[in-house]
Order: sequence, then structure tokens, then C-alpha cells
Amino acid sequence: MSDKMWAVVKTRPEMGADYVQMPIPVIADDEVLVKVQATSICGTDVHIYKWDDWAAGRIGAHNLPQIMGHEVAGEVVEVGRAVRGLVVGDYISAETHIPDPQDLQTLLGQPHIGSRMKILGVDCHGAFAEYIAVPASVAWKNDRDIPPEFASVQEPLGNAAYAVLGEDNDVAGRSMVIIGDGPIALLAVGVARAVGVTNIFIVGKYAFNLDIARRMGADHVLVATDDTDRVAYVKDHTRGYGADIVLEMAGSQQALDEGFQMIRKGGRFSAFGIASQPKLPVDYNNGIVLRGIQVHGINGRKMFDTWYRVRNLLASGRIDIAPVVTHMFTLEDYVAGFDKMLGRPREAAKVVLFPDPSELVAARARRGQ
Amino acid sequence: MSDKMWAVVKTRPEMGADYVQMPIPVIADDEVLVKVQATSICGTDVHIYKWDDWAAGRIGAHNLPQIMGHEVAGEVVEVGRAVRGLVVGDYISAETHIPDPQDLQTLLGQPHIGSRMKILGVDCHGAFAEYIAVPASVAWKNDRDIPPEFASVQEPLGNAAYAVLGEDNDVAGRSMVIIGDGPIALLAVGVARAVGVTNIFIVGKYAFNLDIARRMGADHVLVATDDTDRVAYVKDHTRGYGADIVLEMAGSQQALDEGFQMIRKGGRFSAFGIASQPKLPVDYNNGIVLRGIQVHGINGRKMFDTWYRVRNLLASGRIDIAPVVTHMFTLEDYVAGFDKMLGRPREAAKVVLFPDPSELVAARARRGQ
Amino acid sequence: MSDKMWAVVKTRPEMGADYVQMPIPVIADDEVLVKVQATSICGTDVHIYKWDDWAAGRIGAHNLPQIMGHEVAGEVVEVGRAVRGLVVGDYISAETHIPDPQDLQTLLGQPHIGSRMKILGVDCHGAFAEYIAVPASVAWKNDRDIPPEFASVQEPLGNAAYAVLGEDNDVAGRSMVIIGDGPIALLAVGVARAVGVTNIFIVGKYAFNLDIARRMGADHVLVATDDTDRVAYVKDHTRGYGADIVLEMAGSQQALDEGFQMIRKGGRFSAFGIASQPKLPVDYNNGIVLRGIQVHGINGRKMFDTWYRVRNLLASGRIDIAPVVTHMFTLEDYVAGFDKMLGRPREAAKVVLFPDPSELVAARARRGQ
Amino acid sequence: MSDKMWAVVKTRPEMGADYVQMPIPVIADDEVLVKVQATSICGTDVHIYKWDDWAAGRIGAHNLPQIMGHEVAGEVVEVGRAVRGLVVGDYISAETHIPDPQDLQTLLGQPHIGSRMKILGVDCHGAFAEYIAVPASVAWKNDRDIPPEFASVQEPLGNAAYAVLGEDNDVAGRSMVIIGDGPIALLAVGVARAVGVTNIFIVGKYAFNLDIARRMGADHVLVATDDTDRVAYVKDHTRGYGADIVLEMAGSQQALDEGFQMIRKGGRFSAFGIASQPKLPVDYNNGIVLRGIQVHGINGRKMFDTWYRVRNLLASGRIDIAPVVTHMFTLEDYVAGFDKMLGRPREAAKVVLFPDPSELVAARARRGQ
Repeated sequence: MSDKMWAVVKTRPEMGADYVQMPIPVIADDEVLVKVQATSICGTDVHIYKWDDWAAGRIGAHNLPQIMGHEVAGEVVEVGRAVRGLVVGDYISAETHIPDPQDLQTLLGQPHIGSRMKILGVDCHGAFAEYIAVPASVAWKNDRDIPPEFASVQEPLGNAAYAVLGEDNDVAGRSMVIIGDGPIALLAVGVARAVGVTNIFIVGKYAFNLDIARRMGADHVLVATDDTDRVAYVKDHTRGYGADIVLEMAGSQQALDEGFQMIRKGGRFSAFGIASQPKLPVDYNNGIVLRGIQVHGINGRKMFDTWYRVRNLLASGRIDIAPVVTHMFTLEDYVAGFDKMLGRPREAAKVVLFPDPSELVAARARRGQ
Repeated sequence: MSDKMWAVVKTRPEMGADYVQMPIPVIADDEVLVKVQATSICGTDVHIYKWDDWAAGRIGAHNLPQIMGHEVAGEVVEVGRAVRGLVVGDYISAETHIPDPQDLQTLLGQPHIGSRMKILGVDCHGAFAEYIAVPASVAWKNDRDIPPEFASVQEPLGNAAYAVLGEDNDVAGRSMVIIGDGPIALLAVGVARAVGVTNIFIVGKYAFNLDIARRMGADHVLVATDDTDRVAYVKDHTRGYGADIVLEMAGSQQALDEGFQMIRKGGRFSAFGIASQPKLPVDYNNGIVLRGIQVHGINGRKMFDTWYRVRNLLASGRIDIAPVVTHMFTLEDYVAGFDKMLGRPREAAKVVLFPDPSELVAARARRGQ
Repeated sequence: MSDKMWAVVKTRPEMGADYVQMPIPVIADDEVLVKVQATSICGTDVHIYKWDDWAAGRIGAHNLPQIMGHEVAGEVVEVGRAVRGLVVGDYISAETHIPDPQDLQTLLGQPHIGSRMKILGVDCHGAFAEYIAVPASVAWKNDRDIPPEFASVQEPLGNAAYAVLGEDNDVAGRSMVIIGDGPIALLAVGVARAVGVTNIFIVGKYAFNLDIARRMGADHVLVATDDTDRVAYVKDHTRGYGADIVLEMAGSQQALDEGFQMIRKGGRFSAFGIASQPKLPVDYNNGIVLRGIQVHGINGRKMFDTWYRVRNLLASGRIDIAPVVTHMFTLEDYVAGFDKMLGRPREAAKVVLFPDPSELVAARARRGQ
Repeated sequence: MSDKMWAVVKTRPEMGADYVQMPIPVIADDEVLVKVQATSICGTDVHIYKWDDWAAGRIGAHNLPQIMGHEVAGEVVEVGRAVRGLVVGDYISAETHIPDPQDLQTLLGQPHIGSRMKILGVDCHGAFAEYIAVPASVAWKNDRDIPPEFASVQEPLGNAAYAVLGEDNDVAGRSMVIIGDGPIALLAVGVARAVGVTNIFIVGKYAFNLDIARRMGADHVLVATDDTDRVAYVKDHTRGYGADIVLEMAGSQQALDEGFQMIRKGGRFSAFGIASQPKLPVDYNNGIVLRGIQVHGINGRKMFDTWYRVRNLLASGRIDIAPVVTHMFTLEDYVAGFDKMLGRPREAAKVVLFPDPSELVAARARRGQ
């Protein structure tokens, strides 16, 4: 094996990325080396690709060049000497949040939001490459019935599942509004449908995405930008009370305002969207306090409770995420992938990249393409 | 309106019941009078019909004659003067557990297991009649999209839903073994499927019922009486760990023994079956303590959290209970219904009775019969 | 018994109230008549006394005259004909939130935040009187070991207990910051101490109140208005992480800003304060989403789970609220009571009023005054 | 540093143990070497010391010689090369349950009951020695305010805390019966008192231990062997309902029988005792199912949620466990320690051993001995 590999690398603090050769990672004692079969593009990658203010501040030009990407599925090809329970040949994905073992949150069962955790592909080299070094603590053994193009998407599907289930898993026979129509919102519709949410509303902007939402199982599709009274619509379809659960997945002022009005007294609000302003005005009294609302900040996925559920939902066929995986390219064709993600109006949801072109051929065959 | 009505009445402390005229109930200030559209036969009714030791001890010959039955759907025709929020014309079902408002459990949000609660059709006249007096505190407003033959079955469907969801609602993406194949076990399969249980095993005795279980969505059907190693089978299909959740719905020694072996360490065990012996030997150390099992005693349904979920599951079409409602008769034909319930091998699941023959005709039409 | 009684009545839409004779209430079928032994002044009463914008909008001049007050302890002297489980002679307090029995929230176990609930002393006549009509659904039987001046305070003590315990009761061995130094915040310090919070911070404005906080068990007392870096202080005393739990009981921008910075990642934020502005800017990303915070809107008390705990804490002596009950007067002396509540700087916490002067004498004797 | 150390070693498959020299452990990459300051005797150690059937079957003669013990506090003197977050000089204790990182339970947040976990001092060398090798995954950094003789006891105190708090932490303002009077039951009394249990009953056998229970805060002390009607007593002191929570910490038939009768409908039963028979008859219907009881199997402690609470309770002084630590000896004096544990009637609770005699001197000084 050569000591070089191809990778999509952020080389300069400006728009874009390069497909260049990089050294194959040398793993630490507690890491495994993974041959990437599929990797998918996240919104975070788009921010880094564009090198917007968030990316510039979070990563910093002095840390370039850095391999992008964190959603991944692949095969373990080397195992660090202190790793227990993983062997060469294991088919794994990676949790993105790399916990610090002595963080208080790690010790209390919340490693996904540890105070000192690192982010794969942000704080270190990522998955848009032929190989990636993955700490054993974030390696997740995949079910072999799940093909790489879906196994890679388990990470955002986990975001969706965590947002749907919240901290209390209390969703069966409940109503839910999902505000936003990005890939995770679309996956959330599918999860909601699979886990017994009985009345699913989605509020979005793009016809292309809302059509996917319908195919994933939404009962009601609302357009965020027309003059419908969306709050009244939700109340009219929930006997006047509002929805039991609201998932805020847009991060906009409108999403917060409408979300806190669409929720019934005593309901649960999953806060997942990232706002572009430092602060958003919130109707604290009527949105939260007096109406007895529970707001759950959702970041990442539970390690590994969410992964376990997501694997089971996928492997059992209870959820089919094919409608959300709208595009597949070779890794070398990454620019085509990012162009899809950047297009307006949006005409893509999830884009999967394959370092090995034969994996793309196989994936297309599985989908009858 | 005459002051007499027809009813199926337990008149004598022996096998059977009579179809006789009884006075239409005079309601108390806090009750409503309901014209029964559909009523269904529960296992409890079969015990009373047979007048076995339990029935003799629980009801007592001195309380006869008593109208049988408690599963019901019908229309409010009169409202007590102290009742708030119910009006003539409301389409309701009745929760069977009538709480005492000052019971500690009622005050703590557990009215379904109040120390001094009464049971409809056991501690007072029941629903196998043209009319029934229902305390307003147990009246549940039905969704009009749910036909009476299903609305009546919401009560046992609630048992099933409560057993599936347990006290923590933590079922999405989990595996579950349901031990037993009575009507509630069959309904539990359907609920499990609707709420995202991803691997559903059922263990039962009767081919007729197990076939219904398959139609309700069971992934694995095991026969309780053959020489399969059922514990090994469950472990083989759960990566060696055992199931996340076990529902014990048979009340037998075998069900407990196998159930506590089929469950994974850290799993949840819903205890629902009624044992025929005063005590059952349990492997306390390895069944519960050392393996960190949670056992949830399940009696009745949460008032009215379970009803809300059940209504939403039915009204949304997320669950279809038609395969479980195997027989429908007029109330006058009650003997045919009980014969079906008493037959061995079992060739019936849920039997619904209609006081008004035209309701039976309408129900048959809805089912294409 | 005369048909008239003395009461503190809001007669005109302006500052103040009058001590006048009113008819003794005629109870409905589902109510009890209570002879008031003690009643205490809440912040809500102060708003009504001042007739500020909130009071004018919430109550409305057209509904005057109306008897004020809702915190109460007294004896049942008459029982409505449809009431079950209460008898003449019962020693009760009243939950302030009067639920509608068919409200969805009531049916789901959240009657304290029902969409159509009424508020005692706001939507109907209140407790600043010799007698009050109390719906049986909100009557709480007191422990006779709890004297009236404390039994009346169980209602705000319940606010405090609910805010401390949140929706998950997860407080034992945790750290907590309480922001605010009103009576409920001071009671919250006592509850926190009694239920095993191991590191209690309070942030307040008034030396008089903060001294009470110390006596109730606060480990750290911080002044909201000096130039201490309160966020840094909390982090310094929680190994750098921030507190596990924050109780926001001030409703100010500063309280929210500091509260969301004082809380550790993965912590719980009880939102209890009422803001004076329609909307407050919140750091949505770093305050809630990315840090995985749970915000629990706290309104009222759980019915009657919180009451049960509060009774047990008081009756067992695990909590002593004497330091918070700073003043006691006869009901006729209500102006002195309100003057204490209105004084700046604050030199009062909880003020209790007694319609019967002999009750005041007895209460003073119990406290050695 | 010599390569030998003194240790209490099980050398032969018979009663007793030997104080002999053993090699100082050579640590693996993911372990730390700890110089033992204090170590304490657990009931498990007594079983091994006696070499009863359980010990013979669980450990096996072929694995001897093996160093005994698992409760420990000490200082890190060497750190494995793959260890993150621990350094020489750290003051630590060790969790006894060593998880397998790829166990399903570990991945789901239940490492304390992993299917393939190992037990310190049972599946490998233990802590009754001058040095012990501790896997980094079970090292817990102690608060330096907690002296070694108490820091070592955090492990059984964690058992007690987990049993008291159960899976739901719902204890504040509740009543609790603790059945058993071993050291963990006595610690449970102290925890219950510290976390707001308002009515604490203990049922035990030995006057010496029950006296400690009183000092730890029990409200009611019942003798298991006299002719008191203990069930009636508990009901009489809980308004006839029974206790909200029962902790079964004896493992006897009497404990189970009485426990399931002492608990109120809807209560929680922590199953912690180890039965000496393979199966115990349980009143399944009336003990669990019909009365809606939740049984929580309690094994070990939550990693590390329980440790965090225990540390905070101890370091804050909210709990004082001095009454339970009844004896302290040098490690060389281990026979005296075991004699105390084996004595009948019991006149010891927790016995702490110190490898370094100067640590014993310091501990005695701290306690004014």
C-alpha cells in the first residue's frame, strides 16, 4: 500500500476545496484506520467549503490544509495497539463528536456534548478521502445489511432521530411539526413516521424538498414563504391545541416565532436549528414559562443509543431513506456534489461521494440506476 | 323512551348469563347516560360468564343480578347536573377504572391504579346493554372517524399500548418479545409495529391467533408448546444479547421463566399476565437484580394519556385492528360470542356485540361483509 | 350564620383595595365552602393591588368588585352535593389552577397548565375573606401538623419545589444556581437544601432577602447589582463547568443572559420568571442548541404530585420555612401587609393574613412572638 | 521502587487468606498504577474469604492465587501510554465494574451491567495490596476533601445511592422502607435522608446496626425478627397506603414478601439483595401486576452519574458516613477486619484497611481517635 491517498482538502482560506494527494493517516494507539467506502456532504461541510465567517473562526486559516468531511462508512484496515473490540474487516461508521474521557459530560452519559470534545473533520482531518483515522471511542459497527451510501447517512439520520425522540422518547401517538426542509428535516419526517407520530406537519421553502417530505410520510406540507396562516393551520388540525411536539430545524426568527405558537401548552420543542444572529428574541412568557413548554437543545446524537435505534430502523426496513439520498458521485467529482448543495432553489437533499468509483457503480445498481 | 332496556345480565352464581330486561339506569349528578352502539367481550367477562373462583370472590353472589361488560362505544343521551364538558350527542367510550378523586394515586397522576378505584361491569352495572351510566370522570370523547366496533376495542388496545410503551415510552428502534397470543397480545403486536419497534417476536399457542399476529406485523412467530429453544432463538436474532423489551402477557410459569431469559441485561419487562397461582417462583438474582432489569407492572391504561395515543393511532390509520376483531354479533346473540371466546383451540380474538342490529349491519358493511 | 362576611376586595380599577362586606359565597354542586384560617399575599396580588397593565388586561375593570387572594388554608364548612371524598371539618388548602376536566392537558396529566383552566382570585372571587368557595377538584387535604400560616404558603412553596425538581426530579447531588430573591426563590433555596442539592448559589438584589437565603441553606450568595463576575464565580466553584441546574426566577434580561452562561453543557434550566417585555433576546445557539440545554417552563405546581412532596417536606420538618414568613397581620390590617410587599428596598418575604384575629394570636404564640 | 509488594491474597480454595508478597502489577497501555491509601471490605470479599459455593463457582480454584478486594482510594503513580486525562499524582478511586467498550450495554449507557464486563478483585487482581492496576475506564478522580477512608467507601455508597434514587431519581418528599441492615442499607438511610426522603423506615436484625441506622437518620426502626406486624406498621404510618418506595437489601423470602406488601400501589421497588436460593416465590399478581409496581434491578452504580452525586454529597458534608465506618486496621491486620465482618451478632458495618500504617494513624487522628 502506498503511503499517499487522494482527498478533498481545504487548502486555502477561501471558497472551494482541492482534490489532492495527502499522506495516509498514521493511527494513534487508540485509533483505527478506515478505508472509506462512502462519505456524504453535511451542511457543515458546505460552510467550510464556502469558508464563511463561522468556518474561518471555528477552524482558522492556520490549520489548513485539512481534509474535509465527517459522514462516513468504511472498513477497518488497521487497529491501534490499545484498541479493544474492533478488528480488521469490521464495517464501521464514525460518530462525529470525539469525547474527552474525563469530561464531566462524558462521565455523566452525555459524551455527545462534552465540554472538551473534538469534531471530526473540523478539529482534525476528515472523511473526504480514501482513508481516515477514527478514534475507537467513536467507531460504530454497522449492520452489513445497510449499504455504504445509507450507512454514511446514519450520522445525520441520528440527528433527526434524536430531534424527533428528544430526551424523553415520548412520541408515539403524538402530533409533530417539523420546521425546516433541509436533509435532516426530511429524515426527521421519515423517523417520525416510523416511530408512531400520528400527525406530521412540515414547514419548508423548496418544492423539491417538500416533495421528498411527502414521500417520507408527511401528513401536511406547509410552505414557509406563502401567506398561509401556518399557526392557524396547525391548530385547526390539532383540535385547537397546537402540536404536541415542534422540531425547530431552520434557526430563523420566523421558525422560532411560529414554532412557539404552533406548540400546545405542555408540549416539547426540539431546538436544533442554528441561528445566524448572536441572539434571537423569544416570547419567554407565553412561549415557554406560562405555557409549560419543555425545550430540548439537540446537538449531535446520543452515543450510542441513537445509533442503535437508527441502525435498527434502517436494517429492519422500517424506514427507507432512499428519497433523501438524491445524488451520488465519485469523490473526485466532489465539485458536482457541492454545486448541488449550493444550488438555489435547492434541488438536492443528501449527496454521497465514493472514493472508489466501483462503489458508486454498485450503489447505483442497488438503486436500479 | 321506555324505562326498560335489554341487557346481558349475570343473574345466578353459575355458568352463563341471561338476556333480560332491566331498568334503564338513573344517572347520578356526575354521570352521563350512554346509548350503547358497540360493546366487546373481554377476558374478564369470560371469567364472570364462567363464574370461576375469581369471579365468585371478586363480585359475590349477593351482588347479582348485575349487567356484564365494560368495553363500550356509544352516544351520550343525558348529562348529570354537575357534569362539565360533556353534552348530549357526544360520541364516547369509557375507561373501565373509575377513580376515587381523593385516592393518593389519583392525586399523584395514577388514577388507573387507585387504591379505592371501582371497575366498570365488576363493581357496578356494565355495558352489555342498550344503555349504561358512565361517570363523567371516565368518559372519553371518541374521534368520529373511528367506527363503534373499533372504538369499543380502544380499551383493550389501551392495555396493549400501555404494555408496549411501559412507563418510559422507550420503544423506538428497540426489539421486543410478546409472550402470549390473546387479543391484547395481538393488539400489542400492532402497536409495536406502529410505534417503531424494529424486531417483534411473539410466542403463542394457537395457530389461529398466531396467524393474526403475523398480519399485525410480527417479525418472528414462535410456538410456546413445541420443542424449539425459544430463548436461544431470540438471542440468535438479537446478536446474542436478548430482546430490549419483553411483554409477559400469559401469566404462566413458562412465560416468566422464558421471559426473564429472553430479555437482555438492562432491558424492560412489562408484567401484564395474570397468574393462576398465588405465587410464582422467580429467578430473582439472575432474572432481575444482577442483570439490572426493570419490571413494570401494567394494569389498565394511563388516564388518559394512553387513550389519546390510541385514538390518534387508530384515527390516523397508523394501526389497523381489523384482523383482531374476528367476530361481530348482535347483543341478543351474546351466547354465540361467548362460545367463540370459550372455544378450544381458540378461533377468535375480539368479539364485538351490538345492541341495535342496524349497527351490526353497518359495521359489516364497513368491513365489506 | 350571617350571609355576609368581611373581605379584601378590589372595587375600583386603581391602586389599592377595600375591606368591605360581601355575600358569603353560595357553592356549586362540585364545590366546598371553606372558612379561611390563613391567607397569604402573592406577587400576583400585588399586581392586582397596584392595578398595573397586566392586572387591568387580565382581570378587566368590568369584573370588579372581586375578592382578592388565592393562597389559603382553612376548614371545610359545607360540601356540594356532587362532591366525593371531602367532608365538613376537613382542613384544606387550594390549588390555584382550576382545571377544565375535558381540556387535553387535564386528560394528559398536566391540569396545572390546561388551555382553559381558571385562576383562583383572578378569574373568580379569592381567599382574602372569611369564606371562599373552592372547587372540589382543587381542594388539598392538609396535614394537621402544619399550622395555617405555613399551610397557606404551600402554594408558593409548590412553585419553588416544582422549579427545583423540574420535570425530571433529577437534583440529588447536583449543583444549582437560583437567580432571583423573591419569596419563591427563597423557598427554592430551602427545598434545594432539603432534597440533596449539594452546591446552592443564589443571585439576588436585596440584603434583607439574601440574609434569609443564607438561613434557608444557600452555600453561595451573590449580589446581582455589584461588579462581581457572577458567571466566573459559578464556574470557579463548579470545576469550570457551570452549574448542573439553573432556576431563572427574576424574568430579567440579565437573569437570562447570566443564567444561560452559568449552566453547564447538558444542564437543566427552569424558566419561571415573568419578563416585563414581550420578547427577550436569547443566545439560542450557545445558550440552548449547541450546549444541549433542557429548558423547562415552570408554571404552577403539579397536581397534586408537588403538593404531596411539599406536605411531606413540611410535616416531617425536613424543611423549615419560618425564615421566609416574615410578617403576619389580621386580614383587616391588609394595608400593612401590602405596604411591606411594596417597600423598597424589600424588607419582607412572605406576608400572611388572618381573618380571625385569634388565629393570628395563635400563630404568634407558635413562633414565640 | 522494589518490584514486590505486600498483599492479602486468596492462595488456596479454603477459608481464609494470606498476607504475602506479590509482584507489583505491570500496567497495560490503557491502565494506571495506583498506590493504595485505603481499601475496604465488601460482602463479596467475605464470600471469597470464606470460599463458599458462590466464590468457588465464580472465581475457581484454578485462578488462585489472586489478590482480594475492590473498594479503594489511592494515588496514581504510573500512567499507561494510551491513557488520556489522567496523570501521576491524581487521587482516585475505582469503579468495580470494568466495561467492555463494544458491549451493547456500554454503547447504550449502561456499562455497569455490560454483558461482558469484568469485576475488579473477582476477575482479576484486586485492591488489598500496596498497588493495584486500574483500567483508565474505571478510574474516578476523587475530591481531595474526602479522606481515603471515606473515598474508598464511595463504591458501596454508590450502591446505596443508586438503590435509593432508582432509575428515575424520584425520591424527594417520598416515603421509603429499607429492608436489611448491612453496610449498604445503613448508607442508604444516610443517602435517603440527604436527598429528601421524608419518611424513612428500616427493617433489620442486629441492634448494633440498627443503632447506626438511627444515627444515619432513620425515622422508624423495625426489627425483622420480632412479632411486630411490620406491614401494618408501615401502612399505619403512611395513611394506609404503604410506602412510595421499598429497597429490598436482604435477599430473603421474608424481605420480598413483606416488601411487596409494604409498598403502595404505583410504588417503586429497588431489588438489590442477593437471594441464596435459585428462585424465590413472588406474588406476581398482587405484588407487581395489579398494583402497578415498578421493580428496578439494582446492580453496581451508574458510571459515573452515581459517583458524581456521591462525591458531591460527601464533599459538601450533606452526608456524614462516619457512623458506618466502624473499624479501621492496617492491611497486615486484615484478619481482625474479617473477624469483625464474620462476627455474629454483627458488631461491625464498614471495615477499612490501610497498607501504609501511617495512613491509619492519620485517619484515626481525623476521627479524633
